[in-house]
Amino acid sequence: MNDPAAPNFDGDRLITAVVQDVASGDVLMVAHMDRASWEATLRNRRATFFSRSRDRLWEKGETSGNVMHVREIRLDCDGDAVLLRVDPAGPACHTGERSCFHVHIA
Amino acid sequence: MNDPAAPNFDGDRLITAVVQDVASGDVLMVAHMDRASWEATLRNRRATFFSRSRDRLWEKGETSGNVMHVREIRLDCDGDAVLLRVDPAGPACHTGERSCFHVHIA
Repeated sequence: MNDPAAPNFDGDRLITAVVQDVASGDVLMVAHMDRASWEATLRNRRATFFSRSRDRLWEKGETSGNVMHVREIRLDCDGDAVLLRVDPAGPACHTGERSCFHVHIA
Repeated sequence: MNDPAAPNFDGDRLITAVVQDVASGDVLMVAHMDRASWEATLRNRRATFFSRSRDRLWEKGETSGNVMHVREIRLDCDGDAVLLRVDPAGPACHTGERSCFHVHIA
């Protein structure tokens, strides 16, 4: 089994990014990345995604100031999902909640 | 802001499922769910996904025995991602690693 050294962006596919608070372990949000946002995240160490609704690069916190400082990056076994372990400057969710996963179902 | 009470499966879309170990907080894997796998997960309290490669329902551990007992389910703010907090019976990854996110990039 060869581990991937980089995400698989073949055919302009997007990968799934899971964001976890490195201090609390809370899962904060899920977003998507294209190659450019992946490279920006590695370069700047701030979580940067591809916004499907706006069809452009989106640095988390670019408007709100709630940037996410990336402390650790892990790729999954088939290279189509990435885990960003971050130190968030503020709430992840646009509702003001710390995590987007604030709707308790069961 | 109205919180979603259920995931958004409009137009047969799939939602993203993030699986987290409820004891350690480790993020174990990412998979996808259609409406049937969502309902099966709620009903059986075992993590069940939609396999895009096999185009069918897939209960995690159905072959390996490494089922994931679901202890908590949370939905995100826009209803297109779900967090399953689970008690896993064995490794999440087909490589034998506990988590699929075992490739350290940075």
